[in-house]
Amino acid sequence: MLTTAEKNAALHAAADALLASADAILTANAADIDAARAAGTEESLLDRLRLTAARIDGIASGLRQVAGLADPVGEVVRGSTLPNGLQLRQVRVPLGVLGMVYEARPNVTVDAFGLALKSGNAALLRGSSSAAHSNAELVRVLRECLAASGLPEDAVQLLPSHDRASVTALIQARGLVDVVIPRGGAGLIDAVVRDATVPTIETGVGNVHVYVHSAADLGMAESIVLNAKTRRPSVCNTVETLLVDAAIADTAVPRLLDALRRSDVTVHGDLDGLVPATEEDWANEYLTLDIALAVVDDMDAAIDHIDRYGTGHTEAIVTSDLAAAQEFTARVDAAAVMVNASTGFTDGEQFGFGAEIGISTQKLHARGPMGLPELTSTKWIVWGSGQTRPA
Amino acid sequence: MLTTAEKNAALHAAADALLASADAILTANAADIDAARAAGTEESLLDRLRLTAARIDGIASGLRQVAGLADPVGEVVRGSTLPNGLQLRQVRVPLGVLGMVYEARPNVTVDAFGLALKSGNAALLRGSSSAAHSNAELVRVLRECLAASGLPEDAVQLLPSHDRASVTALIQARGLVDVVIPRGGAGLIDAVVRDATVPTIETGVGNVHVYVHSAADLGMAESIVLNAKTRRPSVCNTVETLLVDAAIADTAVPRLLDALRRSDVTVHGDLDGLVPATEEDWANEYLTLDIALAVVDDMDAAIDHIDRYGTGHTEAIVTSDLAAAQEFTARVDAAAVMVNASTGFTDGEQFGFGAEIGISTQKLHARGPMGLPELTSTKWIVWGSGQTRPA
Repeated sequence: MLTTAEKNAALHAAADALLASADAILTANAADIDAARAAGTEESLLDRLRLTAARIDGIASGLRQVAGLADPVGEVVRGSTLPNGLQLRQVRVPLGVLGMVYEARPNVTVDAFGLALKSGNAALLRGSSSAAHSNAELVRVLRECLAASGLPEDAVQLLPSHDRASVTALIQARGLVDVVIPRGGAGLIDAVVRDATVPTIETGVGNVHVYVHSAADLGMAESIVLNAKTRRPSVCNTVETLLVDAAIADTAVPRLLDALRRSDVTVHGDLDGLVPATEEDWANEYLTLDIALAVVDDMDAAIDHIDRYGTGHTEAIVTSDLAAAQEFTARVDAAAVMVNASTGFTDGEQFGFGAEIGISTQKLHARGPMGLPELTSTKWIVWGSGQTRPA
Repeated sequence: MLTTAEKNAALHAAADALLASADAILTANAADIDAARAAGTEESLLDRLRLTAARIDGIASGLRQVAGLADPVGEVVRGSTLPNGLQLRQVRVPLGVLGMVYEARPNVTVDAFGLALKSGNAALLRGSSSAAHSNAELVRVLRECLAASGLPEDAVQLLPSHDRASVTALIQARGLVDVVIPRGGAGLIDAVVRDATVPTIETGVGNVHVYVHSAADLGMAESIVLNAKTRRPSVCNTVETLLVDAAIADTAVPRLLDALRRSDVTVHGDLDGLVPATEEDWANEYLTLDIALAVVDDMDAAIDHIDRYGTGHTEAIVTSDLAAAQEFTARVDAAAVMVNASTGFTDGEQFGFGAEIGISTQKLHARGPMGLPELTSTKWIVWGSGQTRPA
């Protein structure tokens, strides 16, 4: 029921409060970092967990950016006046209570709070135990700020993370929690979706393919594959398997292999000179500087491979042939299907949403990058003047 | 991948085939009716089960009507051209495989087939065992017709109905079935939603309220309440509880009671002269010529009552006061919220959708009457010219 102005004021106040509490947040984060280092956590994970003054600035800026986005609540999606004079409007309303289950990065705590608040939802957050001190301090600041803004502080709550009991309680709170969004690795997402009785939105697992079609511009194929693999190997829109059409394999494969190796990418596959591929190589995300490569007979074979191993995240074709581009985009079943573009573009900010809470790989409710509208439901508002329905 | 023309031709062919097979369908239906009568089924249920030549005409007309509706597949929901030249379109695509679990009426078998075909989906149908002969004959005709149209006959399949095993298999076929829609009583819907691992869409349970506000036109209130209760008491948009504002109770209650009794409606409640109400009366759907009546102190009390007992289907206010109408429609959380109109209008055909597969009372994916667009997902199609994402 909050107005857009009230929500935006609270978002800016939260940004201010985070900056004002930066020292306390960094102290809490240092405790998490120390504990993780003592437990032998590797440096790349420590970096995900680490907050700095600059990162807190970035987190606060993120809240101000969300304040600047259009408010999805109240948007009229459809409407009509019926022949009997009834006026129908389908209006966006908050979902209600969002649950988030997520891994290391403490910035997700604040991002989820911001997107939930702007879309009129309450947020129940279950972060990683490795970020327990950081998350507790962040949520303490956010709750204090809500109370100071005259808003209910329970609109954001942090669940205990010392065991799995809070996850189970959250994902089985049917009737109390409207949706749970898991964000993290495939294991976390599978576990949440399998055991949930609350509706869930699957996110993020991306076994992404690029198909270099017989009519591909090889220079374009090379730059797209390199960008899609090496820009940030650990994210879900990274390409994991390269499919090369047999018609151009003789020239394309050596050229692409050479480019990949020069970028320190290890190539797995059945061709001579590659690291031999197992079923695992085709089925799983590497999320590292590795890629699987297969030569496929034609588009049918490429699409068969994608149907079999794809996770419905992002699939791309490189081709100069219009009919091939149309056929590929029509037949491939994924959240995003791209022609002559890096798969790295599947991202809420890149799509122009301003922010995203995750990338849905399911078909119900939301598919692809989820921004603010995906955190809403709708209701039909019907205004009449005494209309009754004929028998 | 079918074109709209191909789907429409198949729908008309199916309508023709059902008419041509009317005798065989009626023979099969007679076997169901005989078995149900022998089992002591009451006449109102027999009537739901019964097919006649006129009803088969109606079912066939329904398929032709679906052929006349706009094809949701391929609709561009949103789109933009990004600053880097990438062209984005969010396009409607079929969900894939729809499961339906439903009760007696054999017309649902054909309706579901028609809506699924038009939206590009396959349909797995699990009807009632009481309609087993009718459904088997209807699906035999539909499959023959698909094959004759050059379409895959497995696009519609009837599941065995002699025990619950087929329901369990359907609702747990995660990864094979994209959504299951239960249609029937609260018990059926609860069981499906509780045990499903496949995404489900809850439909239909409507504990519907009409709140007669202090500024109501009592003549309008009377005609709306009578229409919402007596037009078809057994359907989900029927009003089940009448909330009368205390400020006008002295005049409104006697008038409404009198009108309801003249229409043979039994009124339950805490007032003198009513059938005493229990918790059940407030919580459950009657689906009969019964209604519960409560006097509430004010709008807050009316909304508290609706929050506590409503099922999120349809809620209505009768008022001449603009601010009251605005407050009620903003605060009440339901699929449809009406001002000065009969709750009987919550219906896909009434809303102008042409057909409906059910009325969703959940918030995710679809809320309210579900037509063809609600049977689709979307995918993002991205056309580029070699774009790569900056680091």
